[in-house]
Order: sequence, then structure tokens, then C-alpha cells
Amino acid sequence: MNIAFIGLGTMGAPMARRLLDAGFAVTVYNRTPSRMTPLAEAGAKTAASPQEAARGADVAITIVSDTPDVEEVVLGEDGLIHGLAAGATVVDMSTVAPEAAVRMADRLAERQVGFLDAPCSGGSEGAQNGTLSIMVGGDASTLDAVRPVLDVLGSKVTRIGGVGAGQICKAVNQVVIAGTYAAVAEGLAFAMAAGVDADAVRDAIGSGAAGSWCITNRGSYMTSGAYPLGFKTRLHRKDLLIALEAARSRGVPLPLTAAVEQQETELIRRGFGDEDVSNLARLAREAAGLDA
Amino acid sequence: MNIAFIGLGTMGAPMARRLLDAGFAVTVYNRTPSRMTPLAEAGAKTAASPQEAARGADVAITIVSDTPDVEEVVLGEDGLIHGLAAGATVVDMSTVAPEAAVRMADRLAERQVGFLDAPCSGGSEGAQNGTLSIMVGGDASTLDAVRPVLDVLGSKVTRIGGVGAGQICKAVNQVVIAGTYAAVAEGLAFAMAAGVDADAVRDAIGSGAAGSWCITNRGSYMTSGAYPLGFKTRLHRKDLLIALEAARSRGVPLPLTAAVEQQETELIRRGFGDEDVSNLARLAREAAGLDA
Repeated sequence: MNIAFIGLGTMGAPMARRLLDAGFAVTVYNRTPSRMTPLAEAGAKTAASPQEAARGADVAITIVSDTPDVEEVVLGEDGLIHGLAAGATVVDMSTVAPEAAVRMADRLAERQVGFLDAPCSGGSEGAQNGTLSIMVGGDASTLDAVRPVLDVLGSKVTRIGGVGAGQICKAVNQVVIAGTYAAVAEGLAFAMAAGVDADAVRDAIGSGAAGSWCITNRGSYMTSGAYPLGFKTRLHRKDLLIALEAARSRGVPLPLTAAVEQQETELIRRGFGDEDVSNLARLAREAAGLDA
Repeated sequence: MNIAFIGLGTMGAPMARRLLDAGFAVTVYNRTPSRMTPLAEAGAKTAASPQEAARGADVAITIVSDTPDVEEVVLGEDGLIHGLAAGATVVDMSTVAPEAAVRMADRLAERQVGFLDAPCSGGSEGAQNGTLSIMVGGDASTLDAVRPVLDVLGSKVTRIGGVGAGQICKAVNQVVIAGTYAAVAEGLAFAMAAGVDADAVRDAIGSGAAGSWCITNRGSYMTSGAYPLGFKTRLHRKDLLIALEAARSRGVPLPLTAAVEQQETELIRRGFGDEDVSNLARLAREAAGLDA
């Protein structure tokens, strides 16, 4: 199977490499050409545009940073749409607005090109190890055809519904992360301000009804006050804005998410946008009088 | 070891029975006498007051519903303090204000009676199976002496710090539950309002960074709209009020917790106080336009 792979960032580069290692023929394109060099050395072909990468591809994977970028890569002047043959499939693994997924799918369908939205969670470590959770929107038959590709990238591939449902699922993921991280931050900062051993508290409550991935894996960041990556606060805020707009356009208020987005905006202004999103604890610690 | 056991409610009754089954000599007291009958039939002695239950006891365990109740049982006219000998220990497993724990410990110390605050989580199922998580405040040597008793009741016994630290830990537990449950409710209601398969969403996101005990064990309550016990909303609200006051008195704001407490107050007014606290999803579902 021939794969066009567009976007060699922190996530995309290790994903493209996994596909090469699995034996797929991969043609890569990246806006900054120098990022293509290591993949070319590992056996990838390189292209001068998404359109060029698309020629002869059965599957085109995109993973770029935001909605306008993915629409340019797919539908723009040099976009995939101008290079893919009928019967090919675009798999967009970026986190973008659900409505953009529907728009792209509609345009591609006019050329008999399939589309899946397939955003993922699991971070750069998941990208390297092929342990991403991939949330898929689109036809079940389209997913079946590209599943061998997605199985190289993720350990959990879940079809959520039709086109756009994968992006809704990713938005829900970020919404739940927002409130859960804020809750753990508020609780642990209170424990520290009350003068008890916050690490003993983490241990005592982390396996019961208060337990979460966050308290197990990020609680120690919060009690120590250091927030190594992880997942950047400024990227999480970008995703929350997508979620808030996707909900707003459906008449759904997300008050807890909106409050956390405001906190992240403050953190970004203060220069902490490149820390892990567990730095929500910065604000909880300050509010509790722990830090200056 | 002779044990006085005060408070045979949903939690206390199965805990007292476990201690009997483990071979301890147990004398029970309950304000409503009829609740003592099944334990008497299982081999417990019964007493007409906490003071009477305390005579000859090495350890007195209390698990009653609120701060004034436990202070009455321990320090009141017929309280444990008037029956316990020097060298005995009171273990209060109720969820009450940390300051009340300190007051009781101080009064008991005047009679050379030890004190531990040892609130627990894990619900009535944990009480029956001896799988509670017990969060202990008090001297390490006092804990060592009663640990054989606590090991019958809980699978995890964690010393958090000095007297009151167990109650702080329990307060943090309820704070983290509040925000985590609210986050999961907000996310899943959004998923449903967007028309995607919310159970597929739960499955896709529940094992990653958005994962929690709540989404795994209560997410299906939230998507189905039924909230069987579990842990009652009105009891969780009681615990949140303790946490908010314990934080307030230390100058610590808990804005997320305060917002969830307000939601629980609305649910209680509307007659849903005896449902599981996952019924926070009622309000999220209504806000999302899912229910009338």
C-alpha cells in the first residue's frame, strides 16, 4: 500500500517512521523541508507539495497543527485533492473542528476520494511506540480498508460514528482532561496548604473513586511544582477552543471547560504555554498561598 | 483485644460484623437500638450508651454521620471519654471537620486516651469486603497499636500526618471527586448532544489521559441517565461543606469545588439527594438540551 504522509511535527515524524519500518511505501511532505531529511534517509520518498505526494497513493495521512493548515493541505491549490485518484482515502489525524472534517469529506467525495477524521491521543511517546488511541469518524467500510495502516500507529482504534465523530470524541477527551486536571490541582494544592503530606494523600486517594490517570501520572508534577512535557498547555488551549466552539454551535454550554480555558490563557500570557498542561496546578498553588 | 463500636449505619454495621468475624470481642452501641439486634445475634455485646460500651475497651471505633454527632458520642454526657481507661484509643472513622478531630484528641489526651482520625472511602461495598481505603491522622505509634483492627476493615491504611490529617485527606478526596465527576458529566453530555455514540467515546478515551475511576465506573450511569447507589449526593454535599470550610479557614479558595457544591444543592432541592453523586450528569444533560 502506498502512503502519502503530510506533516512531520512532533507527532507526525515518528508516525511516518513507524509506517516505513512496517514496510509501507511512504512519500512524505512537510512545509519546512529540512524535517523530511531524516525520513528520506530512512527510506521515504519526498515530495515538493501535498499534490505531488498524493500521486499514486492509496492512503494520504495528514497531521498538521490547526484547522486552516489541514484545509490548505487537503483542499488548497497544491492540495491532496488534486493528486489523489478515485478510490483513495484521506485520513486526517490532526485535531480540528468537526465541521472542517465534514467540509473536507464532502469535497473529496465529489472526486470519489474517501475521508476519515482520526484524531489521536497518547502524545509523542504514543506516536513513537504505536500506542496511540485513535478516534475515528467516517464509514465503517472506509475504516476497514485503512485499518492495517492505523493499527501500526495505535493500540486502540475506535470508530465513534460518521464523519466528524472522531473530532467530537477528541474534543470530549480534552474537555474531560480540562476538568479532571483542574480538580486534581485544586485538591492537591489544598492538601499542601493544609500542611499534610500531599504525596501520602495522592497514594491514599489515587486508587479509589478520586482516582484518575492525571493524579497517578501528573500528581507528582503538581506537588513538586515542575511540569515537564507531556502535552503543551498552548496546544491544549487550542483544542479547548475547538471543543467550546463545537459545543457552542450546538447550543451546549461547557462552563467548567470555559473556566479552565481561561486559566490556560493566563498561563500562556505568563510564559508557561510550553509546559505540560498539569501546570494548571501553578494557579491552584498560588491561590492556596503556596507560591509567590 | 476488646473493641467498643459506636454507630451501626450503612458503613458501621458491616464493619462491626467483620470485626466479630475476625475474632475480636465487640461491644456495640447505636442511637436506634433495633440496629444492634443483628449484631447481638452474631455475638456482639450491646450497651445502653457509648460510656457503657467503653468500659474495658482497648479501642473504641466511632462512625456516625456528622461533626456534632461524633463530638456527642466521644465527649458528651454519656460519651466514650467517661468510660475509657488510660491507654485506650479512640479511632473516629466518621467524616468530620479536621478541627473537631484536634479538639477531641486534646480532650482525650487529658485522660491519657489516644486518638486517631481515620475516615475512609470505598462505600458500603468496601465496608462489607474489608477493602476500604483508610486515611489516618495521629501518632505513628498509636496507629501501630491499632493496625491489626484497621487491617480487618481496610485493604489500604495510609498515615497522612498528625491528628486531623486523615480528615484533610478525606476532604481532598471529596474535592477531587467533585471536579472529576463534573468534568466527566460535562464531556459525556456534550458527546450525547453532538449525536455521537457516547459509550464508544467512553471506551476510546477512558484508558488515556482523560481516564478516571469515575468514567470507568460511573460513565455508563451518566450516559444512561440512571444513578443507583453508590454514594449519596446529600452525603457528598455534607463532605464538600466540611472541605470548603476547612479550606476557607486556611485562606484557601476552592472555586471548582464550590461550583459543584452549588450543583449538588440544586439536585438535593429537586429530590435527587439520595441518588449516586454521578447524578451531577442530570444537570449537564439538561444544560446540553438532552432532557426536559
